[in-house]
Amino acid sequence: MRTAIFAAALLAAPALDADTAPSYPPTPSEIVAAAAPSDWVAIDPSDVLVVTFAPDAAGRERKVVIQLIAAPFSTVWTANIRTLAKAHWWDGLAIVRAQDNYVVQWGDPDGEDEAKARALPAGLKPTSEQDYAIPVPPRPTSEATGADVGAPAVGFGVLRDSYAPSVGYTLTGWPTASDGQDWWPIHCYGTVGVGRDVSPSAGTGAELYAVIGQAPRHLDRNIAVVGRVIEGIEHLSTLPRGTEALGFYATPAERTPIASIRLASDLPAAERPRFEYLSTESASFAQYVNARANRHDAFFIKPAGGVDICNAPVPVRRAKAG
Amino acid sequence: MRTAIFAAALLAAPALDADTAPSYPPTPSEIVAAAAPSDWVAIDPSDVLVVTFAPDAAGRERKVVIQLIAAPFSTVWTANIRTLAKAHWWDGLAIVRAQDNYVVQWGDPDGEDEAKARALPAGLKPTSEQDYAIPVPPRPTSEATGADVGAPAVGFGVLRDSYAPSVGYTLTGWPTASDGQDWWPIHCYGTVGVGRDVSPSAGTGAELYAVIGQAPRHLDRNIAVVGRVIEGIEHLSTLPRGTEALGFYATPAERTPIASIRLASDLPAAERPRFEYLSTESASFAQYVNARANRHDAFFIKPAGGVDICNAPVPVRRAKAG
Repeated sequence: MRTAIFAAALLAAPALDADTAPSYPPTPSEIVAAAAPSDWVAIDPSDVLVVTFAPDAAGRERKVVIQLIAAPFSTVWTANIRTLAKAHWWDGLAIVRAQDNYVVQWGDPDGEDEAKARALPAGLKPTSEQDYAIPVPPRPTSEATGADVGAPAVGFGVLRDSYAPSVGYTLTGWPTASDGQDWWPIHCYGTVGVGRDVSPSAGTGAELYAVIGQAPRHLDRNIAVVGRVIEGIEHLSTLPRGTEALGFYATPAERTPIASIRLASDLPAAERPRFEYLSTESASFAQYVNARANRHDAFFIKPAGGVDICNAPVPVRRAKAG
Repeated sequence: MRTAIFAAALLAAPALDADTAPSYPPTPSEIVAAAAPSDWVAIDPSDVLVVTFAPDAAGRERKVVIQLIAAPFSTVWTANIRTLAKAHWWDGLAIVRAQDNYVVQWGDPDGEDEAKARALPAGLKPTSEQDYAIPVPPRPTSEATGADVGAPAVGFGVLRDSYAPSVGYTLTGWPTASDGQDWWPIHCYGTVGVGRDVSPSAGTGAELYAVIGQAPRHLDRNIAVVGRVIEGIEHLSTLPRGTEALGFYATPAERTPIASIRLASDLPAAERPRFEYLSTESASFAQYVNARANRHDAFFIKPAGGVDICNAPVPVRRAKAG
């Protein structure tokens, strides 16, 4: 018995002859690829962190690019992160933790040792757990578009949620949740947040983590969400897992050194990466989310009729040169 | 300014003096650790696959242990997988694909080349996409306990879902979903499924994948779920990601060779690992799921009030020797 089981086609239909191929609705990826140039919004380089780690064992470069979350969320922490980056505070520090199906974390390995901890730069603002969520605004309108920016900004009908009464995307391209009174950014794969000690510590922003597993949504409103990885997540997700409790590395030699962390806007123009995201206000985005909820392309038999917001991430790509 | 931000405590409270420490409800891990021995159910070695890959670059052993799903789900595929393991069919084949935030896949790298593909063993059963789900049984009772095994078997009140009208755990310890008519196993982190070509192919079971990212629940009822990784997932999740479409490796040298795949029951007794899972019928399990939905331990400020079923995985551990 020999059956065709090689699953290069696990998610994609094989190329079929155009004359005989049945017609299927486009996949989510095809919808994104077909979106008009005007559906894409440039990401400001001052909202982008370029994290450069030491090269890997084969000498290959390891860069991870993070987009900082837009106001009105977590603004005190993102201000601190800009201050830390401008001070080159992270340079020479390291990844200290990699816990499977959870987070990778970086910062000062000696942060708990007062004698050895690196001094924080001047100008960091105090942070508060009060700022993990914001009050739902009284239905203001977007200055740019006149659209409603109340929460959830763009929810469609296909997002249901296990953790909050409603979820949706802000008009600035961020996944959020709300209980009608408060509104907060959420943890998905690739989300970047602020490590902290037990409450009332809310963390300065010097200790950061990125999610490398199932969305840890129980951290929502319990930790500051400050951004998302938009390129190079594989340099974090493939790191050897730490063997100590919570995935901390047992020895300094296991840590990955940080060469530098810079705002893209502080890099020379030639080195400045440029990114754009698919507008959450665009018809293309709505089509994309609906296709994620209802897969009707060649590979699929039963569409789900719903989708977890973390399985419909806002598409981000390198901007075309121009 | 120097604040305590080192987040060894990202998820755990630091050790506090017992006289002064406030009292908090137990964490999910503490609940599992405190469960009575009688709450744990032995996993039959004939339901366990031991996957041994070639050693890593440092010569370290890489073993991944998979528990095959219990009847009445996917029984044709799990029968085929037993046949393939007994035939030593996978030995010398390889991991062919690692796609970030999605799956790692293994099988015959030459499976699509009829001249080079490895012949499948005799005795494999034909498979059908009809078997991705089963009809909800007419409320039968468990022979062992007399309990209702209708779907969802154990749902509690805190599981809400983006993909199906109801979700819950079977009395045999598996996360499932139902629409009232049909009942099916679901995709979470670590779930093992059967690669296939486009429908009506349903895959034999020779080509397998494991989930290494956000639960791809849109695959539910579109692919056969056959098990879950219960030990060693880090040997899959940390693999370098493939650079071809869908994360396939560009060159044979990037593939990780499979040394052997065996049923634990076919290993010499001394090499046979023994595992047990926390009974989904136990009070400990209910307490664990509820604690996952409502974190009140020292680190947390705002409990969510709900939990994704994939964030409340059934606890599995090595059985105590005895």
